[in-house]
Amino acid sequence: MQYPLPISKLIEGFMRLPGIGPKTAARLAFFVLDMREEDVLDFAKALVSAKRELTYCTICHHITDTDPCRVCEDKSRDQTVICVVQESRDVIAMEKMKEYTGLYHVLHGAISPVDGIGPEDIYIADLLKRLQDDTVQEMIIATNPNIEGEATAMYMSRLVKPTGIKVTRIAHGLPVGGDLEYADEVTLSKAIEGRREL
Amino acid sequence: MQYPLPISKLIEGFMRLPGIGPKTAARLAFFVLDMREEDVLDFAKALVSAKRELTYCTICHHITDTDPCRVCEDKSRDQTVICVVQESRDVIAMEKMKEYTGLYHVLHGAISPVDGIGPEDIYIADLLKRLQDDTVQEMIIATNPNIEGEATAMYMSRLVKPTGIKVTRIAHGLPVGGDLEYADEVTLSKAIEGRREL
Repeated sequence: MQYPLPISKLIEGFMRLPGIGPKTAARLAFFVLDMREEDVLDFAKALVSAKRELTYCTICHHITDTDPCRVCEDKSRDQTVICVVQESRDVIAMEKMKEYTGLYHVLHGAISPVDGIGPEDIYIADLLKRLQDDTVQEMIIATNPNIEGEATAMYMSRLVKPTGIKVTRIAHGLPVGGDLEYADEVTLSKAIEGRREL
Repeated sequence: MQYPLPISKLIEGFMRLPGIGPKTAARLAFFVLDMREEDVLDFAKALVSAKRELTYCTICHHITDTDPCRVCEDKSRDQTVICVVQESRDVIAMEKMKEYTGLYHVLHGAISPVDGIGPEDIYIADLLKRLQDDTVQEMIIATNPNIEGEATAMYMSRLVKPTGIKVTRIAHGLPVGGDLEYADEVTLSKAIEGRREL
């Protein structure tokens, strides 16, 4: 005997999500059975409407339910700075900080020859177009601090620097609250390299 | 700026599930955005239909889409043995073994005074009713090997033994493929206690 069909279908559904194996999927499915019906309906609706109502901003490619997105539309934001990130989630992380008031550009990935992802597969061309009208004076590259992110940063920097736009990279170093003892060598070396006078 | 409304609703939905915090919920929600629309629809439908179409068997309380459930209806199964488990998932685990051919009874919990769960809160009374017609000759108690499961086993055993029905408890010991070195003292002590002649 296997699970009754409706529950095995639900388990399959959960298993399509990343990081969820058969045991977790079964646990989640059984949890759903004990939820109130209206909560399950709300969740099902949220799934469909997130998929249907959300789109990507045609200017910065950030996820949005209005086009252009709220950041691109907000004229009170600093139009001279553009922060380049890999994913929409990174924009949210930046916005939570509540200190950055410039614009964004979401690449939707990073250059990764191993995975067959070249510069033409992410939104670099669109970024260069946005930089052409002379409004932007600084481009902050906030791609991830790993091989792909660094390669992407290097690539963009080489393209944009000759245009005279200031190109900066976010700092690498020890995370605040971190422990020097447990920092890896590369991070520590970056932290020393990026030291500042007090 | 927060997430656009449709995605924050979806994140909230995921966060209601057990073991899923805000970061995992956001990761899952963004994954859903990249899924094909038909897959998202299928998943949403699976959620709703699992909740709506599934019910619990009125005899054994196992989860089912037919009532009585397939096990209770199957007259080829051994009607003289009844295996008592805590959850529907345990029935599935037993059935995967493909060796047990008797009936089941799902308690939907275990006695736990700490959590305010007494014998009347789980399906023990129903079990006793099922034992009254003299068909059942053995009750295998397969509740979990923890404090609550043991307390429940003890309680049921005291109630049923006087009726003359054979009451057995599944064996405790080292899991197959396990490592003696890493076994905890209680398991090891149970494994020694339950040793059998070769």
